[in-house]
Amino acid sequence: MVSEDRWLLPEGIEEILPDEAAHLEQLRTRVLALFAGWGYRLVIPPMIEFLESLLVGTGHDLDLQTFKLIDQVSGRLMGLRADMTPQVARIDARTAQGARPARFCYLGTVLHSRSDHLDPSRSPLQVGAELYGHGGPASDLEVIRLMLEMLAVAGILDVHLDLGHVGIYRGLARQAGLNSEQEAELFEILQRKDRSGLEDFLRGTAMPAAVADNLAALLELNGPDGVLEVARARLSAGGPRVRAALEELEALAGQLARLFPALPINFDLAELRGYHYQTGIVFAAFVPTHGREIARGGRYDDIGKVFGQARPATGFSADLKVLARLGCADAPTEHAAAIFAPALDDPDLHETVRRLRGAGHVVIQELPGQSGGAAEMGCALRLERQGQTWQLSKVGD
Amino acid sequence: MVSEDRWLLPEGIEEILPDEAAHLEQLRTRVLALFAGWGYRLVIPPMIEFLESLLVGTGHDLDLQTFKLIDQVSGRLMGLRADMTPQVARIDARTAQGARPARFCYLGTVLHSRSDHLDPSRSPLQVGAELYGHGGPASDLEVIRLMLEMLAVAGILDVHLDLGHVGIYRGLARQAGLNSEQEAELFEILQRKDRSGLEDFLRGTAMPAAVADNLAALLELNGPDGVLEVARARLSAGGPRVRAALEELEALAGQLARLFPALPINFDLAELRGYHYQTGIVFAAFVPTHGREIARGGRYDDIGKVFGQARPATGFSADLKVLARLGCADAPTEHAAAIFAPALDDPDLHETVRRLRGAGHVVIQELPGQSGGAAEMGCALRLERQGQTWQLSKVGD
Repeated sequence: MVSEDRWLLPEGIEEILPDEAAHLEQLRTRVLALFAGWGYRLVIPPMIEFLESLLVGTGHDLDLQTFKLIDQVSGRLMGLRADMTPQVARIDARTAQGARPARFCYLGTVLHSRSDHLDPSRSPLQVGAELYGHGGPASDLEVIRLMLEMLAVAGILDVHLDLGHVGIYRGLARQAGLNSEQEAELFEILQRKDRSGLEDFLRGTAMPAAVADNLAALLELNGPDGVLEVARARLSAGGPRVRAALEELEALAGQLARLFPALPINFDLAELRGYHYQTGIVFAAFVPTHGREIARGGRYDDIGKVFGQARPATGFSADLKVLARLGCADAPTEHAAAIFAPALDDPDLHETVRRLRGAGHVVIQELPGQSGGAAEMGCALRLERQGQTWQLSKVGD
Repeated sequence: MVSEDRWLLPEGIEEILPDEAAHLEQLRTRVLALFAGWGYRLVIPPMIEFLESLLVGTGHDLDLQTFKLIDQVSGRLMGLRADMTPQVARIDARTAQGARPARFCYLGTVLHSRSDHLDPSRSPLQVGAELYGHGGPASDLEVIRLMLEMLAVAGILDVHLDLGHVGIYRGLARQAGLNSEQEAELFEILQRKDRSGLEDFLRGTAMPAAVADNLAALLELNGPDGVLEVARARLSAGGPRVRAALEELEALAGQLARLFPALPINFDLAELRGYHYQTGIVFAAFVPTHGREIARGGRYDDIGKVFGQARPATGFSADLKVLARLGCADAPTEHAAAIFAPALDDPDLHETVRRLRGAGHVVIQELPGQSGGAAEMGCALRLERQGQTWQLSKVGD
């Protein structure tokens, strides 16, 4: 293998060089400080786990996305985490104190065995926040607000919000008497927004025309404000579960409109993405320049059950690398003001360097005989002896 | 599988809960700020790579430690990084501008397919700094100083430093006329400090008694100050390479003794750990309460060659989780001062909460009908309306 091949990284896998890494690190610090200010406490789930813990209640999509490997120690199958949300749900179930709400946040690399056309990256830097132990719309509102604050911290303007509610689909599917296999098949069709697939599917079942009509309506119920009104009319026969879901959606949209008057909200009642574990309100944030959502989340009340605690849950996640690239927050420029210290073994110089570093300055120590001077090392300032003391002077003066 | 089994994590793999995670995050920020102050710029190498890029020039140990998986996209074998140093060496080789020195730091999870008795963790949070492009002792001194500063930042007291020089062993092995297989075998024996294995090995070769005696001496040349003097006498016939290495070691130890007068230094001329890639000065930091080194590093001048740039290199790494556990730096206590805000939809309250969070306070918003009040939610303060304004009061008053 020639040395050039050794540069090659697998598709969708990347290394991050200093300028971008510094920007990412700065954003990381700001986002985690934001989460901490809202009471969301950082947890660090493991990078690898036994497969049956990792894929609990998450469905087939996540399974396909998960790299598998054999544990030499136990001989058991392990997976590389492809989504941290189920891991955090387990941490909540394990540490919950009574029925009290608990707030967690997380930030770390997840790995996907396959990329999709919307997201070429196979190693997103997943960041997210989750609120457990509260089932009302107030907790959905809190996490959506926090998501919008996170996007603001990242300097992302022009955000649009998509809102949906999985309960509408689930209510209609139940009314239609679909078994779980049929429900999953239709779910996939709606996820793809596949109109002709939907017609084929509905023709193939024995459900009453009115019920099929309700399900077919989901694909049309997509757009701003007026959609919910149309939905109430078209899905009026959908039963109490559907009506409750529509009311929840409407109340949430009203509160959001009041808190964020300039935020465009789009309703999408066929919006069902998210590895099958969602159960209520779902949401996603978009910007015009990016082909897919930049953050997404929703309610997923049942996920902790397999760990012995079925707690209500809602939360969101995003790829911090995407946020860093889309945000207009200035990249850090501190390296431009770096100070070059000469390669001299002088106690006063050592003390000056120590003091400057302690005060937050970047000081690059010249190495004896090194190639490149202050300018080549990216330093705008240098330390020079003036009389008894070491002083800063501009490089080039 | 019963739900209790789902808690189980693979051996040596752990999840990190809020108190420890907050402490780790705080230490991360401090250590990266320290590195930045010395001009070391953060890079983020990929978590997975093609195996032949990952294992370049690193020897058998790292191969055994590396989890392997098949890339579904390319059909090629990939590895999970078990050590970030070779990855950073590649980044240096790829980005080097002429012969100028370059400084990089990194921090991230690495995964080991097997644990050893000294280090039960299979997922260290590796943190390290590397200096490329300078071959003299000044760069070794710089990275050792930075490592000691890092341990001080972590609040680790009572540090002892081990110093060695791989050039002494390599010089003696060359003088003994060992082929590379024999050199590797003897290397393993010395790494194990296996005295009887060494005797067997030396008896099995045809080398002159004086040369065998030099190699056997390595295992004894272990201890404080006087060791270098003994080494100069015992290895006097070791040739110019050995003499040069001893002189380098002595000069470095002298500078360290001057900069850190209270630092206990131990010399170990059979100290050869580190995946076979080291070429010069090697060092490790110990504390009395921990059975293995808490940070280690050394010179590894040849590693970039396979990437087309053989640059001199020196650096160190450590497991941030170990540093956090050993350090006496106080764990953060900010959660104790968290503020509880009532579940009311009041614009003045919203504004007060926003201002408090903006000023760095943790404010936990009560959720309607939630279980647990301010005290149960870990808040020491609460917001209460007093007349026209919202004021902080102590919980329990």
